[in-house]
Amino acid sequence: MSAPTIDQPTTTATGPGPVREGAFGNARSLVCRECRHEVDLGPHYACPECFGPLEIAYDFPVVTREEIAAGPRNIWRYKALLPVPTDIEQSPNTEPGFTRLLKATNLGAELGIDNLWVKDDSTNPTNSFKDRVVACALSAARELGATTFACPSTGNLANAVAAAGARAGIRTVVFIPSNLEQPKQVNSAIFTDQLVAVNGNYDDVNKLASEIAGEEEGWAFVNVNVRPFYAEGSKTLGYEIAEQLGWRLPDQIVIPVASGSQLTKVHKAFQELIALGLVEDKPYRVFGAQATGCSPVSIAYKAETDAIRPVKPDTIAKSLAIGNPADGIYVLDICRESGGAVEDVSDDEVRAGIVLLARTEGIFTETAGGTTVAVTRKLVETGQLDPALETVVINTGHGLKTLDAVSGIVSAAATIEPSYDAFRATGLGA
Amino acid sequence: MSAPTIDQPTTTATGPGPVREGAFGNARSLVCRECRHEVDLGPHYACPECFGPLEIAYDFPVVTREEIAAGPRNIWRYKALLPVPTDIEQSPNTEPGFTRLLKATNLGAELGIDNLWVKDDSTNPTNSFKDRVVACALSAARELGATTFACPSTGNLANAVAAAGARAGIRTVVFIPSNLEQPKQVNSAIFTDQLVAVNGNYDDVNKLASEIAGEEEGWAFVNVNVRPFYAEGSKTLGYEIAEQLGWRLPDQIVIPVASGSQLTKVHKAFQELIALGLVEDKPYRVFGAQATGCSPVSIAYKAETDAIRPVKPDTIAKSLAIGNPADGIYVLDICRESGGAVEDVSDDEVRAGIVLLARTEGIFTETAGGTTVAVTRKLVETGQLDPALETVVINTGHGLKTLDAVSGIVSAAATIEPSYDAFRATGLGA
Repeated sequence: MSAPTIDQPTTTATGPGPVREGAFGNARSLVCRECRHEVDLGPHYACPECFGPLEIAYDFPVVTREEIAAGPRNIWRYKALLPVPTDIEQSPNTEPGFTRLLKATNLGAELGIDNLWVKDDSTNPTNSFKDRVVACALSAARELGATTFACPSTGNLANAVAAAGARAGIRTVVFIPSNLEQPKQVNSAIFTDQLVAVNGNYDDVNKLASEIAGEEEGWAFVNVNVRPFYAEGSKTLGYEIAEQLGWRLPDQIVIPVASGSQLTKVHKAFQELIALGLVEDKPYRVFGAQATGCSPVSIAYKAETDAIRPVKPDTIAKSLAIGNPADGIYVLDICRESGGAVEDVSDDEVRAGIVLLARTEGIFTETAGGTTVAVTRKLVETGQLDPALETVVINTGHGLKTLDAVSGIVSAAATIEPSYDAFRATGLGA
Repeated sequence: MSAPTIDQPTTTATGPGPVREGAFGNARSLVCRECRHEVDLGPHYACPECFGPLEIAYDFPVVTREEIAAGPRNIWRYKALLPVPTDIEQSPNTEPGFTRLLKATNLGAELGIDNLWVKDDSTNPTNSFKDRVVACALSAARELGATTFACPSTGNLANAVAAAGARAGIRTVVFIPSNLEQPKQVNSAIFTDQLVAVNGNYDDVNKLASEIAGEEEGWAFVNVNVRPFYAEGSKTLGYEIAEQLGWRLPDQIVIPVASGSQLTKVHKAFQELIALGLVEDKPYRVFGAQATGCSPVSIAYKAETDAIRPVKPDTIAKSLAIGNPADGIYVLDICRESGGAVEDVSDDEVRAGIVLLARTEGIFTETAGGTTVAVTRKLVETGQLDPALETVVINTGHGLKTLDAVSGIVSAAATIEPSYDAFRATGLGA
C-alpha cells in the first residue's frame, strides 16, 4: 500500500498503487457523473476527461434483506453496498448509523401531514450524519495507506473526523477558522491534540487544506481527495429509511441541502434498492431544504434554470452555508424529475422550526433540522408537498451544537421562591 | 383510571384505583427491599411496614433470546422484563436504548486492561441514560392516569423528562434551580413551555416537588411517586450489555454512583438474566465510581462500615453529586459480595478521564463518564480490578452538557496564517 496523493485531474488517475484484494468491497471503479468515464479506484475526485465529479460505481452481487438484517446494528449492515472491505467491522471506527426513524404524529398534526416520519441523525456518535460519511472516508484512508486523517471544517465534520481518527488510532489533523466559538473548538480539541486554528474564513481554511493535500505525502482529507468514498456514506440514510419502513420507499422525502451531496446520495440509495429488488419500484418525490440566507439551489429552482449562481452565505444555518454547492445541479435534476421541489425559509422560520420539532417530538435539532422542518411546513402551505402522502423528514444534527440559535427565544415560564404558595401563584397547578 | 397521588407510607398502599389489565406487564407487585412486604402496584415508593424502598417484583414467563432479538432496536425489546404493557411500542416515547457497546482497545491499552468495553449511553435521545428510566416512568404515569409529567432536576433528568413529555403529548412541568447555567436551561426549555426556575438550591427544588406531589392531583413526578417504575429502566443497561456480548456476562463492570440506583439495577438485570436462563450463571465483580468531592459510598466502603454519612457535595461531577445516596447501602452490599469495590477520584482525575476517553475511543463523555474512566484506572493501579478479566465501563452521558469541565484544558495546537509555509512551520507536517 502506498500513500494517497492529490488528485491529478489532467491525467487518467490509476490509483496510488497496489491495494489489498477486496479493499473497496463491491466497488468497481470511479465513474464521472457527467461523461461516465471510468477510472481506477483511488484518491481522486475529478474526472481526468471532463473535470466532472467522480463517484463510486459497483458490481453488486445478489443482496438479500435477510443478509442485511443479520448484520450489525450500524451502517456496516449495508457493507455490501458501500466501498468498504468485507471485514470492515474488524477495524476500529465509531460504528455510526441505524438511528431512530420516529413516527411523528404530533409534528404531522401541526403541519397537516397525515403520515409523517423523522429520521433522527442527532443520535449518531458525534451527533450528526457526518459520522456516516467519515466512517466510509476512514476506511478508504486506511485501505489507501494514508498516515494522516484530516479535514477543514467549522463544525460537525470536524467533530466526526476528530472522533473517528482518535478511535482508529490514526494521526488526525483538523483545520478550523480561528474565530470559531470556543465551545465548538472544544468539541473537536477534546478528541485530537492536532487541531489547527487558521486566521481566515472557511474558504481560506479549505484552500489551505487543498494545498496541504497536494504537497504532503499520505494525507487523506475526507472531503477532498477521498471525497467519492466519503460521500457514499450518506446512502446509508436512504437504506435505513427503507429498511425501517419495512423495506419500502416513502412517497415524499425532505432533505437539507448544503453541497447537495446528501440529497443525491439518498436518491442513489433508493435507486440501488430498487435495482437490487430489495424494495418495490415506485415513484417518490424528493424535496430540498435551504435557508434563504444561503439558497442558491432554491433560487435556481424557482427561476426554472439550471444555472446556480454562487451566493455569499448570511444565515444562522451555518452547517448549510455553502454558497457554491458542488452537487446543486444534481439536486435540481432529482427534485424536478421526481415531482419534488426546492424551497427556502428565513432565519426566524428556522428558529421556529427548531422549537416546533422539540415541542412536538422531543427532538432537539440544530439549525439544519430547523430549516428542514420549516421548509416542510412551507411546502405544505404552498401546495408543493402532498399532505396525504407518506413523508419522511431528515434531521441531520443536534441542537446542543447550535444553542445560540434558540437561547434568546426559549426560557423558563416562571421564576419563583421555593414554596408551594409561590408555585400556585404561577397558575401552573393542575 | 384515576390519578396518582402521593405515597402514604403509614398505610398499606393499595394503588390509585383500577388500571387496565396488563398495564404493568409481568410486574406483580411492589416489594420492600428491606422487609419483603408486598403492596399492590401503584404510585408508591416507601414500604408501609418499615419505610424501606419499594421495588418492582415480577412473575416472569419463559423469555427466549429469540423473542428479544425479534423486538425493536430500543429498550422495548426487553418489555417482558419491565413494568410496561405489551403494547408499549404503540404509545409515543423517545425510543431510547440499544446504544453502542464499543470494544475499547485503545483505552484498554492505556489502562493496562486486556479486554475492555465501553457501553456508551451518550447517544441516547437526550444524550444520557436518563432516557431509559424516564421512558419507564412515562409508561407508569400514562397507565396510572396522570395528567402531568414532572421532575425536579439540574440537568440530564430535566432534558429527558421534557423531551419525553413533549413527544408523549402530556403536560410536562420541569423544576430547576434558577441559578442553573443558561445553556442547561435552554436544553430543557426547548422542549417545554412549563419550565419553572426556583430560587434555591437543588434540595429546595426537590422539597418543593415533593410538596406539589402531595398537594396536586394527577402529577407523576418521575423520581418521586413513580420512582419504582422509573428505576427499572436502568436494568436495560445490564440486559443490553449481556446481549451485545453475545448473551454472556462480563467478568467485571464499573458503574458510576449517584443515588446508587443504576448500579443496583444493572446487578438486578444480571441476576434476572441468570434466573431466566438467558445467560450462564457465573461470578462477576461490580465496582462503583464516585468523585472524591461527593463520595459517601466510597468513604463507607473504605472504612469497612455500612454507615453512609451524608456529605455536602463539592465536585465538578454534578450529575453524581448526591450527598445522601438512597441506594448507597445496596451498592456497598453488591460491591462487597461480588468481590468488587467502590473507589473515588479527584476533579483533576475526572477531567483527565474525559480527555483520555475522547482521545482513545472518540467518545466525548460528561463528568460522570470521566469519573468512571478515572476510577477504572485507579482500580487497576491499586490492584482492586483484575486487568486480565473482561471488563465493561458504563458511560452515562454526553460531554456537550458539561463543556466547562474541559474547556480550560483542551485547545488548538497552533494558530496560523492561512498559508502552507505557516503550516509547515508548526511542525505538524508528515
